[in-house]
Amino acid sequence: MSKVRVHNFAISLDGFGTGEGQTQDEPFGHADHRLHQWMIGTRTFRGNEEGGGTGVDDAFTAAYWNGIGAEIMGRNKFGPQRGPWADHEWRGWWGENPPFHTPVFVLTHHPRPDLEMEGGTTFHFIDATPEEALEKARAAAGDLDVRIGGGVDTVRQYLAADLIDHLHVVVVPILLGRGERLWDGLEGLEDRLAFESVTAPSGVTHIVGTRR
Amino acid sequence: MSKVRVHNFAISLDGFGTGEGQTQDEPFGHADHRLHQWMIGTRTFRGNEEGGGTGVDDAFTAAYWNGIGAEIMGRNKFGPQRGPWADHEWRGWWGENPPFHTPVFVLTHHPRPDLEMEGGTTFHFIDATPEEALEKARAAAGDLDVRIGGGVDTVRQYLAADLIDHLHVVVVPILLGRGERLWDGLEGLEDRLAFESVTAPSGVTHIVGTRR
Repeated sequence: MSKVRVHNFAISLDGFGTGEGQTQDEPFGHADHRLHQWMIGTRTFRGNEEGGGTGVDDAFTAAYWNGIGAEIMGRNKFGPQRGPWADHEWRGWWGENPPFHTPVFVLTHHPRPDLEMEGGTTFHFIDATPEEALEKARAAAGDLDVRIGGGVDTVRQYLAADLIDHLHVVVVPILLGRGERLWDGLEGLEDRLAFESVTAPSGVTHIVGTRR
Repeated sequence: MSKVRVHNFAISLDGFGTGEGQTQDEPFGHADHRLHQWMIGTRTFRGNEEGGGTGVDDAFTAAYWNGIGAEIMGRNKFGPQRGPWADHEWRGWWGENPPFHTPVFVLTHHPRPDLEMEGGTTFHFIDATPEEALEKARAAAGDLDVRIGGGVDTVRQYLAADLIDHLHVVVVPILLGRGERLWDGLEGLEDRLAFESVTAPSGVTHIVGTRR
């Protein structure tokens, strides 16, 4: 069966996967871009242009696309709006060619029509439990894997439901102090996922959890 | 001036430096010995007996004693009792020859007479602010450094007061889910401490913060 994977999910040393106060200008609130600096410098992130890093951080960054056939994301990853949609103008943070290139299922209590973008990404807005969304995503992914794309609450829900096979978390040595914590309510997760860690010269620590 | 140092301070992946429910049999509550397995296997911890590990974990373990002239600890590190002392029978968790071998200042609202142990350790019980305790410890340490020995709340107080020069934290890949968190209320600590990290084959990640 296809795997359910989380990739490049960055948290602060004190466990916050995003800061406080998401707005359209600040998708990660007061965390700004600090959780993702390690990735921004990689060759993969820069579209393989010259000068990007090709070390540990790049290897992890690139694994994000390997064999993924669909993504599931929470609505707060898709946009800063809350509650019913005022209109359908918002098309995500990523421009007309988002970096997913697969079907993307957006979990929301306020569905809206599918949104077909360039490059193979189509956003499907569904009001569903984690299990129901995963069933749809698996069907869309075929033999390929499903990525749980975030945000924090979505990843935590899938971890709590024991639906994650591969968890890649990146610990960034900053203390955000406030925001949303990834690890809350997951006591004993090490009984389900075997953890490995490796530090990168950028200063981050990559943690990989693999289903036992 | 002498430095103020924290060594071998273990926390879970979700940031807990101790579990819930400290008792005389379980100094770390439901965490049991799981936060310290990495250290128990080292040659240093085993009193240099044959067969102990001599790698990364051992190097960090041994640095605990380098040039330390006094320790400050919270009362909950000294014992499981709370409130006024019923008697003075309790002499710490460590037997008659505790592993400190220096004066140790125990922060408590309930002072009791000094306790002179074997091997150079004397416990002084003082009702003092972190700053006041540090002044006493520095005087006792002479040219040597002062160790902040824990528990969680004591280390966090000294970090909040910006009194720590060297912070060694060990992240153990387990999720305790409950207990006392080390990093709470320390937003922006990276502006005061520069962090380095290294993983050890045991699976833990050593993090060192050095005053900028």
